[in-house]
Amino acid sequence: MTDIASITAAAQRLSGHVRQTPLLHAPLLDRVAGRRVLVKAECLQLTGSFKARGGWSAVSALDPQARARGVIAYSSGNHAQGVALAAARHGSPCVILMPSDAPAVKVANTRAYGAEVVLYDRETENRDAIGATLAEARGLTLIRPYDDPQVIAGQGTVGLELAAQANVAGVTDAPVLVCCGGGGLASGIALALKAYAPGLTVHTAEPAGFDDMARSLAAGTRLKNPAATGSVCDAILTPTPGELTFPILQRLAGPGLVVTDDQALQAMALAFTHLRIVLEPGGAVALAAALFAPDLPDTVIAVATGGNVDPATFATALSRCA
Amino acid sequence: MTDIASITAAAQRLSGHVRQTPLLHAPLLDRVAGRRVLVKAECLQLTGSFKARGGWSAVSALDPQARARGVIAYSSGNHAQGVALAAARHGSPCVILMPSDAPAVKVANTRAYGAEVVLYDRETENRDAIGATLAEARGLTLIRPYDDPQVIAGQGTVGLELAAQANVAGVTDAPVLVCCGGGGLASGIALALKAYAPGLTVHTAEPAGFDDMARSLAAGTRLKNPAATGSVCDAILTPTPGELTFPILQRLAGPGLVVTDDQALQAMALAFTHLRIVLEPGGAVALAAALFAPDLPDTVIAVATGGNVDPATFATALSRCA
Repeated sequence: MTDIASITAAAQRLSGHVRQTPLLHAPLLDRVAGRRVLVKAECLQLTGSFKARGGWSAVSALDPQARARGVIAYSSGNHAQGVALAAARHGSPCVILMPSDAPAVKVANTRAYGAEVVLYDRETENRDAIGATLAEARGLTLIRPYDDPQVIAGQGTVGLELAAQANVAGVTDAPVLVCCGGGGLASGIALALKAYAPGLTVHTAEPAGFDDMARSLAAGTRLKNPAATGSVCDAILTPTPGELTFPILQRLAGPGLVVTDDQALQAMALAFTHLRIVLEPGGAVALAAALFAPDLPDTVIAVATGGNVDPATFATALSRCA
Repeated sequence: MTDIASITAAAQRLSGHVRQTPLLHAPLLDRVAGRRVLVKAECLQLTGSFKARGGWSAVSALDPQARARGVIAYSSGNHAQGVALAAARHGSPCVILMPSDAPAVKVANTRAYGAEVVLYDRETENRDAIGATLAEARGLTLIRPYDDPQVIAGQGTVGLELAAQANVAGVTDAPVLVCCGGGGLASGIALALKAYAPGLTVHTAEPAGFDDMARSLAAGTRLKNPAATGSVCDAILTPTPGELTFPILQRLAGPGLVVTDDQALQAMALAFTHLRIVLEPGGAVALAAALFAPDLPDTVIAVATGGNVDPATFATALSRCA
């Protein structure tokens, strides 16, 4: 069970190995939004997403024997890179299961970090089953992308930084919009903010058609998405809220927000123009919600979760520039 | 005359008004370079370039009467935005002289910060003469882009941050490559490093054909570029080294480096892929030198100076992605 003590312990293990990311803002972006928007730029994290935190937290928490045998992870790409980098730096063998439709840059980067990549079909194969079989055969420890207490604790370190940075910016009451797949980051941040910045409330942000978390929070029970693919936001197309993450968000998060793919692409274009950061579609949905959702207060924080995007997809987003 | 005391005084005035930018790195970028490359990401600065520092330093150093009458600046765009934001925040009227071929995004942003933009022809008109006439007529204080002691002091705050950040990263001896137009940033950084990190040595980086600073440093006298236009690196196409900046760099900088436009575009693509930051061509020449110049040591620091780039130019750079 992840609690604030496990998040601060993870922060200790991560210190000097991952980056404290900046909280950015831009006067001209605020003008577009009609509100003050502060952006936690996790796209600037090592490996290009917050997943470097969870990966490091999980690998560094293993006992030495397990670490020496190695780890395995399944991921559309960002968790893959986070675990691969952490494993490489710890000298652990690393196998990554990736969907065959993952962006080429993510597959290439995961291999470049030294991991063995095994591809599977997202529509027809069960990644959990494949992962369990491989883990058993090679004695690898499976590091789940969100339903792992140490992964949630690692992602929660974003919340520790955010609590301090928002305080410096004079922001004590605001919604914190978080791009959400399985809910590992959102739940970790929610735990950290509850302890250190209780006026900041997490709201998940998801692409339309893949809003399992928003619907589950509204219904009070874990619901599934009708499809596995069909949004440009590849990084966060998880089938259903996590078993560990959902109860945390039920307790601590407000209602979830939903944006269209086109709004995510517009947010990428506006981040390019005004913040000079590179976001991938799934990493831009929280910013899209901050810019385009109705009924938000005057100040909003958005976590920009990742920036691993193929040039062609980015060029598509750039065509949304005014 | 700018000295270390004026830089630390500028840092006091800038505190809380400009951003401390991160020193980024990426394992996969180091692999491309064949060396360790640390990137000071001034593209993440307010207004998208380090010019926000010099602008704030100069406007905040004016006496109250001069500040109330207003300021004027001439710039291809980044100095324009820096001065415009500083003037707006100080309640000063602001006129900006921009070349008619400046990127549209820079013109639009300068206007959005509230400045009055006056366009001139870079080939046929003398911006200094136009600026002096307007300044005289309206009682405006001319804020030069680099040959101004307070502007150099403001840019020097990059060097103060860099000295501390390099120390944290364990780097005490390395070249610091700085994109160079008139030399305001390079000279300010050189003064700061001389005082706080004397093992870090500034080297200017310029586009081929516009390497007036490198040739001037080699010749020991200020030389001119043969042309005023003809490189994609619009931000740093100044005719000749500054009168104030050149003696500083003569005393403190090593030999200047030169890169091609194509190398600058490649550096933009690699920064996109591995650092997830947006660079403009003129803001990428130091990174290009860090990646592609021969005979550099194992660890190099590059200052990525700006990220105000039109989508079309950025798309051109993305086509260089492997």
